[in-house]
Amino acid sequence: MSFDRLIENIERLNNPTVAGLDPKLEYIVDDIKERAFEKYGGGLEGAAAAVLEWGKGMIDALCGIVPAVKPQLAYYERFGWQGMRCLQQTIEYARVNGMFVIADGKRNDIGSTMEAYSDAYLGRVALPDGETAPFCADALTVNGYLGSDGILPALARCDLYDKGIFVLVKTSNPSSGELQDRRLDEGTVSEETAKLCQRLGEASRRRSKYGYSAIGAVVGATYPEQLAALRREFPGILFLVPGYGAQGGGAADVAGAFDENGRGAIVNSSRGIICAWKKRPDTDWQTAARDEAVNMRDAIARALGR
Amino acid sequence: MSFDRLIENIERLNNPTVAGLDPKLEYIVDDIKERAFEKYGGGLEGAAAAVLEWGKGMIDALCGIVPAVKPQLAYYERFGWQGMRCLQQTIEYARVNGMFVIADGKRNDIGSTMEAYSDAYLGRVALPDGETAPFCADALTVNGYLGSDGILPALARCDLYDKGIFVLVKTSNPSSGELQDRRLDEGTVSEETAKLCQRLGEASRRRSKYGYSAIGAVVGATYPEQLAALRREFPGILFLVPGYGAQGGGAADVAGAFDENGRGAIVNSSRGIICAWKKRPDTDWQTAARDEAVNMRDAIARALGR
Repeated sequence: MSFDRLIENIERLNNPTVAGLDPKLEYIVDDIKERAFEKYGGGLEGAAAAVLEWGKGMIDALCGIVPAVKPQLAYYERFGWQGMRCLQQTIEYARVNGMFVIADGKRNDIGSTMEAYSDAYLGRVALPDGETAPFCADALTVNGYLGSDGILPALARCDLYDKGIFVLVKTSNPSSGELQDRRLDEGTVSEETAKLCQRLGEASRRRSKYGYSAIGAVVGATYPEQLAALRREFPGILFLVPGYGAQGGGAADVAGAFDENGRGAIVNSSRGIICAWKKRPDTDWQTAARDEAVNMRDAIARALGR
Repeated sequence: MSFDRLIENIERLNNPTVAGLDPKLEYIVDDIKERAFEKYGGGLEGAAAAVLEWGKGMIDALCGIVPAVKPQLAYYERFGWQGMRCLQQTIEYARVNGMFVIADGKRNDIGSTMEAYSDAYLGRVALPDGETAPFCADALTVNGYLGSDGILPALARCDLYDKGIFVLVKTSNPSSGELQDRRLDEGTVSEETAKLCQRLGEASRRRSKYGYSAIGAVVGATYPEQLAALRREFPGILFLVPGYGAQGGGAADVAGAFDENGRGAIVNSSRGIICAWKKRPDTDWQTAARDEAVNMRDAIARALGR
């Protein structure tokens, strides 16, 4: 199971965090953009070239400190197919450098369409020249609104290719409660989603080394009590925890995402790391990102009493 | 509002249907694939070239009969960035030929990330060379599990660029009830999602010519009673209705999606149209698709008593 690989990456670096790659142009220093636009023109190709150089530089700065990166697909798609080419190249670069890659696409569909998404991001496609892995990430975020028809096809690919998915359970945004906190006959919509993940992932959990199934869950840092309650209720589910830093969650807020072994969660920071240079005009952007990643790692270790 | 444009397309052709473009390689006739693989190689580029030629041929066959196409993004992403380039070219070709394009990506995220998806599929991106529309569809399917934080950013783009979104309310798949049919204190999860769409879309509905807001809803043909009940409860929401044909819904099942003016819905068929050639070995694939589109149009007209 692929979350074993993620957990081993986390333990090797003693750092349960993931750096979100959100390539907005305003997050990229001017000299990278100027070079790219000069060489590749001031359109989508130039923008994608800037994003690629930035992403490689960010990976260079963070690898050895942070075990995983989470490219946000929306920001790559915003630059068209040129942006998607850059996504593929960024994922490849991160994996070559030993990082676990979580493609944050929140994909969702049913049956053979969900298989197609899973092939694209986690699996391989058979063509006359042989099998090829179109984007080749290690995990994918998935929206579970469609029920098990939208999860099982991805799980089958996880089994085949040793990958994982994170299903949205309780997201970090202010309006997440509009549906997710609504009470059902028993429990809430988000708890129901978590139960579904637990049930569908049970077989893969039994085969895993660390006791976490191939179906993880996205649970935001911005609702610490729900986070801790879900942790207690679903011990076999690995949590991807967004909302740390810029969205308002702190190290104390995420502590409840971890179990008594200090495992069970990986905490994401995007803007906190990638925009760190904006607060330190005297420091280059890569050093600023790396320093912030170290601070985050240490703050979480302190909050866990380590 | 963009659904006015869709409704005008529907009324001009007297056909409330949309053809789903699901480019699996097994749905494409051999001579297109052979030509493409010979010219562009047997990898992703060759596959994408075959999909592009197929898509253009399908649009040639259907335009003048069917008012809209719905490319399923998963099948394009399955061919990597080359597939995404083909998606952009296919959308452009459909629009040049007067068709309304619904990008079926079921995208979802919050805040500026949802803005990025909306920029990619519905809006424009400002770059040094000027503004560019990366994929330039007319509407996008959206998953509403994240609540209004995931819908309002898309709605803002709809207002700005005269586009629309379809939010998943009650999907056509067997397991859709696992979450969507769960009872809340009042109503179900899918009704709650529809209420959210209605509330958020109210201002755009008031500005529209035909009384449908820029926030439509995906409601499957495979649950005809729920479809008719939702139609009665939410008159200002345009329904995109999947599940016709191969998924089991027939013309009688979709009749309840329409209001007393014969408006209010657009019915999708994917495999029924694009795979029609497989049942008619004596007929070329484009004629088979066009004939099936005509049959579907006429069957729905009969079911609506016209």
